[in-house]
Amino acid sequence: MTLSQLTFVGLGLDDERSISLRGLDLAKEADYVFAEFYTSLMPGLDPMNLEKLIGKSIIILKRDDVEEHAKSSLLDRIRGKRAVFLVPGDPMIATTHIDLRLRAEKAGIKTYVIPGASIFSAICALTGLQAYKFGRTVTLPHIDSGSLPESPYDHIKANMENGLHTLALLDISAERNYYMTIKEGLEYLRQVELNRKQSVVPDSRVVVGVARAGGGDALAKTGTVRELVGYDFGGPPHSLIIPSRLHFMEAEALQILTGARPGAVRA
Amino acid sequence: MTLSQLTFVGLGLDDERSISLRGLDLAKEADYVFAEFYTSLMPGLDPMNLEKLIGKSIIILKRDDVEEHAKSSLLDRIRGKRAVFLVPGDPMIATTHIDLRLRAEKAGIKTYVIPGASIFSAICALTGLQAYKFGRTVTLPHIDSGSLPESPYDHIKANMENGLHTLALLDISAERNYYMTIKEGLEYLRQVELNRKQSVVPDSRVVVGVARAGGGDALAKTGTVRELVGYDFGGPPHSLIIPSRLHFMEAEALQILTGARPGAVRA
Repeated sequence: MTLSQLTFVGLGLDDERSISLRGLDLAKEADYVFAEFYTSLMPGLDPMNLEKLIGKSIIILKRDDVEEHAKSSLLDRIRGKRAVFLVPGDPMIATTHIDLRLRAEKAGIKTYVIPGASIFSAICALTGLQAYKFGRTVTLPHIDSGSLPESPYDHIKANMENGLHTLALLDISAERNYYMTIKEGLEYLRQVELNRKQSVVPDSRVVVGVARAGGGDALAKTGTVRELVGYDFGGPPHSLIIPSRLHFMEAEALQILTGARPGAVRA
Repeated sequence: MTLSQLTFVGLGLDDERSISLRGLDLAKEADYVFAEFYTSLMPGLDPMNLEKLIGKSIIILKRDDVEEHAKSSLLDRIRGKRAVFLVPGDPMIATTHIDLRLRAEKAGIKTYVIPGASIFSAICALTGLQAYKFGRTVTLPHIDSGSLPESPYDHIKANMENGLHTLALLDISAERNYYMTIKEGLEYLRQVELNRKQSVVPDSRVVVGVARAGGGDALAKTGTVRELVGYDFGGPPHSLIIPSRLHFMEAEALQILTGARPGAVRA
């Protein structure tokens, strides 16, 4: 009996040419190639181009296929086969794929991972902030009519107290075609700041907005909360960085790479 | 006059096939291709194979060429040219390359970055620990005859108090062919624990040793400090993770992927 194999392959961040040579080799050799595009948006990716590159058709899975019906839509189909699952960015960043991987292993399917460039790589490349100085990553929720969770504010505060930058991811729902904007992220933070008044993200706080990280037309811009809430960053996806204390090289990088005013960013 | 361009391209983690298609395209089109292999070790990489893949010769730079003589060895040579600089892993993880990039920009050379898979991607893939729950990354020094810096211990403590895992990189010096081992990293932590006695890394603490992250024969193993200090992880590079509180899925992942005993890792 042939061994069942499921290899998660990172697609990287931009378009179909962000995949690694090894990842492409494995997709070409696989019996089945699956992909998902709901955990993040690759601005330049056209699944047709990806199929052309691999030379075979791709089975695109929706969130429900993976999270509710993994057994029938994926695990049962790949018994005795070699399957590749293409994932935007780096495959093990999304908790949903760690979950799928563990389910596969428990079902006797051997799993492998070919990493890809992640949002973490891209934000360091765009801003010059140092990777080792980031603390816990948060996801900012959209301000709805209902509740206003404050835990992201608390995590930003804890990071800042420890001299650590915070990467704030913004809520996305690819299936509803909803991508939260930097403006909405800042509005959420302003609202919690109003409630808590602990000067974690006052209007004068210098933050960095990042749009289309990893894409050919990526944009990173540094400014105060007040300045950036009105700035047009263009299309999605967006994310936000709340820097803590800066190393002098980081302050210089924010000036050169993201247009920060020298007076606004000091080491 | 042609624009001067310097593009940093991530080579990823394993061998010459870890590069992205975009990165390879740019190297093929470049007037000059530089590379360095001193910031980290790619266990499977042979520079000859990389040259064959790109179809041109690669100028390998040493640490001194970049950090002391960047102007003559690199920046002056690429005036009016398109140059690619190949870097193991993800190019902007190493502070030395952020520095080089800023120097290039100040010298009027336009810079670009093609991200690659980084050690952060690889450790999440190997262990199932969640990327967003990592705090500040530390580098552990080798215990020499001289001083014993305690700041990594303090950072691990602060991360742990905030429920954040710590990735501990281990000192390397590629030019002396020295790669610190997990055993040496644990001995450093034990020594500081002896001095400080704050139960940050007692002998009963469960940690994860990772060897050759991203490589085909990568190994991740969970155990107590006491158990892992005597474990043979094989060849370099090595790194270490000090997990904080675990999500139930992380506890399960450490059992399935890294051989943790169910009693040793609890959510």
